[in-house]
Amino acid sequence: MDKVNLQEKFGLFHEQWTPKVVGELNGQQVRLAKVQGDFVWHKHDEEDEFFLVVKGQLTIDLRDQRVVINEGEFFVVPRGVEHKPSAEDETHLLLFEPAETRHTGDVESARTVHNMEKI
Amino acid sequence: MDKVNLQEKFGLFHEQWTPKVVGELNGQQVRLAKVQGDFVWHKHDEEDEFFLVVKGQLTIDLRDQRVVINEGEFFVVPRGVEHKPSAEDETHLLLFEPAETRHTGDVESARTVHNMEKI
Repeated sequence: MDKVNLQEKFGLFHEQWTPKVVGELNGQQVRLAKVQGDFVWHKHDEEDEFFLVVKGQLTIDLRDQRVVINEGEFFVVPRGVEHKPSAEDETHLLLFEPAETRHTGDVESARTVHNMEKI
Repeated sequence: MDKVNLQEKFGLFHEQWTPKVVGELNGQQVRLAKVQGDFVWHKHDEEDEFFLVVKGQLTIDLRDQRVVINEGEFFVVPRGVEHKPSAEDETHLLLFEPAETRHTGDVESARTVHNMEKI
């Protein structure tokens, strides 16, 4: 059983908007992602999604609210709520969500990753 | 819907070994704890437990292994595995575990908190 060093794992990949699985517990996955620019509007009908900013700044647009999340802050997008993440500069995220969660939710996009890599 | 700033939440309490609930998703809770000294040996029969060190250094003794977790590192203690957390200096943790998880697991101790406070 090994501990996981976040910086070390972030050093293993460069692709943006391509979450990597770094841990699993109680049917939930711990995922790391590097993001920059705009993602697609989407929602998850059955799953709440946790975003912790490890480095940078993440903006999450909701239909009626904008949430700006800085380093050391987290936000939970409740199930069923449409959201669009974006980041001006490259931002590093730790995500927590059920193993079955597709990162683009109910939207099939060019960015949809079907077999999420474990690193 | 509000974001959560970890430092701000850690500033709201001083008790050690007394996790505070700061978020909830998919039946799991995000908890923050300040720890120092030795905790009790315990296990959780049905739940995996996630420890992320936000500040300081956490040692988790397992029956056959010692894991030393530094700032920016996390470790998952699988269900059923006996463990004893400890920290020389005060250490700040972010925990992820099912809402029903007692932090002392199967052990009733003077440290068992029955009604975990939400902050």
